[in-house]
Amino acid sequence: MATAPALTDLLRMNAENAKGGSSYASNSSLQKRVILKSRPVMEDSLKDMLGNRTFPSCIKVADLGCSSGPTAFMAVSEVITIIYEICKEQNRKLPEFQVCLNDLPGNDFNAVFRSAPAFCEGLKRDMAAECYVSGVPGSFYDRIFPSNTLQFAHSSYSLHWLSQVPENLENNKRNIYIGKSSPPDVFKAYKEQFKKDFSKFLGLRSEEMTSGGRMVLSFMGRSMEDPTGKECCFMWEILNKSLLDLVSEGLVEEADVDSFNLPFYTAYKGEVREIVEEEGSFAIDKLDSIELILGNDVTSAEKSQRLARSARAVSEWLVANRFGNNIVDKLYGRFEGIAADKFSVENVKFVNIIVSMTKK
Amino acid sequence: MATAPALTDLLRMNAENAKGGSSYASNSSLQKRVILKSRPVMEDSLKDMLGNRTFPSCIKVADLGCSSGPTAFMAVSEVITIIYEICKEQNRKLPEFQVCLNDLPGNDFNAVFRSAPAFCEGLKRDMAAECYVSGVPGSFYDRIFPSNTLQFAHSSYSLHWLSQVPENLENNKRNIYIGKSSPPDVFKAYKEQFKKDFSKFLGLRSEEMTSGGRMVLSFMGRSMEDPTGKECCFMWEILNKSLLDLVSEGLVEEADVDSFNLPFYTAYKGEVREIVEEEGSFAIDKLDSIELILGNDVTSAEKSQRLARSARAVSEWLVANRFGNNIVDKLYGRFEGIAADKFSVENVKFVNIIVSMTKK
Repeated sequence: MATAPALTDLLRMNAENAKGGSSYASNSSLQKRVILKSRPVMEDSLKDMLGNRTFPSCIKVADLGCSSGPTAFMAVSEVITIIYEICKEQNRKLPEFQVCLNDLPGNDFNAVFRSAPAFCEGLKRDMAAECYVSGVPGSFYDRIFPSNTLQFAHSSYSLHWLSQVPENLENNKRNIYIGKSSPPDVFKAYKEQFKKDFSKFLGLRSEEMTSGGRMVLSFMGRSMEDPTGKECCFMWEILNKSLLDLVSEGLVEEADVDSFNLPFYTAYKGEVREIVEEEGSFAIDKLDSIELILGNDVTSAEKSQRLARSARAVSEWLVANRFGNNIVDKLYGRFEGIAADKFSVENVKFVNIIVSMTKK
Repeated sequence: MATAPALTDLLRMNAENAKGGSSYASNSSLQKRVILKSRPVMEDSLKDMLGNRTFPSCIKVADLGCSSGPTAFMAVSEVITIIYEICKEQNRKLPEFQVCLNDLPGNDFNAVFRSAPAFCEGLKRDMAAECYVSGVPGSFYDRIFPSNTLQFAHSSYSLHWLSQVPENLENNKRNIYIGKSSPPDVFKAYKEQFKKDFSKFLGLRSEEMTSGGRMVLSFMGRSMEDPTGKECCFMWEILNKSLLDLVSEGLVEEADVDSFNLPFYTAYKGEVREIVEEEGSFAIDKLDSIELILGNDVTSAEKSQRLARSARAVSEWLVANRFGNNIVDKLYGRFEGIAADKFSVENVKFVNIIVSMTKK
């Protein structure tokens, strides 16, 4: 194998023209639901932030890991609408908005920017809001904004991605994530990597945010301490099974599965609290985990199709880079079959952590 | 014809994968030379701006109309290097830099962002400079930044593009710009449109810039009052001739040429001074016109090829939208032939206006 590409080059959501309806843009309905669920939390946070204090003539709002689908403007749109309502209620002048949409440099910012004029015109028309959009390319595990300039940061469905695959996973044979058959040090390695990454994230943001600034984050998590519990990683469990099927058919090398591990972690609420408190730059205002039942309104066949597309939208780049493009269609086809079997006997839920904090 | 697309959708430089080496990225050497010529002007401006005053901990620098080629980071790189040298000389702490790269939403920002990490790492390595890059999609004939936030603005090779084709050009038959056979009111219409646009540009920037902020602009211009002088518009004169050739061959409708006019203007120094003074937000520090001889170092065949590619890189979108994609290859082939004839008998120079100003 040639030199491995950096993770920042691999970790990208499928583009708009992706095969078989697997673009991230068409498969982000869960993300939408999470953003909607976060709305009350953002509301409380912004009300508290603006309070009866004076606020700057321009509020800088960032969405970290905005992606390029229909959700790219969704969170910032909620933030601006909430501030508009607060200003209206309190009879205060609406500030200008500097909207900063961040994602990795490989994100399809051209697609995001095509929607920018309509987004700004809509805000102007509906709320007489002046909004200035910018795109900020870079990993949020690095500094991406000047010091002391950011008033409000939001991130949804991104912080479960680690900055790198944890080290020392040599023993995680036949697993691509924390599985029931993984030795205990695998869980430890993942947990440590998340702690390192999330702690770094907090430190970097604390440099960029103004004192009293707020941050609302949501990301995939788990509702129990046991990291192999069924709602923690069923998507990767299915992907894992699908890969092993291809191994038994001779299409994928077992050694490749042995050495492949996802840069992903579903944190538990208690872990998040511990890291925030230990890092020390932010005070937690609210920390919650919410559950979303997958596609409650559709048949199990549709559910499994949706889940397969979602899994493909977020993991295809990583998988294709390791196992080759030619197995991709087969792999996610297999995924859909295994998912259908699963959905015929049980409901599957996603757990999301929502945390709201104030920069000290 | 269907509803005409907005000019902001048409006015874009050819992308990196454009045909026959006609991408803007491969054909921006003139732009590079103009930026290098502007360096001493930027130096004077920045020295004067920073002087012995305190300056903010983060300097926000914008490049307006950055495009997506190798010149996208060139001007801001010069600006940061100059500020680095000033700080070193005066033994002052280097500020952070917020670099804002602006262009129309259709610009290939993905290509720009692919170069962003290397750009920032280079500055960090060479000058220990902390630089945060953002892309700002939008027309500079609209507001694109929050109020009072911008310290330094630069624009190169963009302000000769008007916000729209001037009105009342019905009499400009068989011309696509101000030609020797154009009636006098054509010149007047172009001049008025430039005045309107440039004046609006100044007003918008004055809202965005901090008091004492500086702006250095360079754009194509002319060295004489007569707008049909040979160095004013020879590129469009050749394109015009090429189109009329295709008319005589029946490949292009004469009526289409009659009604097609470029949204472009080469201003005269005196016009620029008058507009800046009349608008009133900025004081001119320097106003100059410089001449660049085209490809002095190469044969006339190479020169004509380069010019044809340059013309194609900047005008293909507009031309293809009006006359259809199928005539494009032929048109710029013809362009090259006419240019070769011209270059075999004379040198051709481009005139550029450089103006440096201070926000009052």
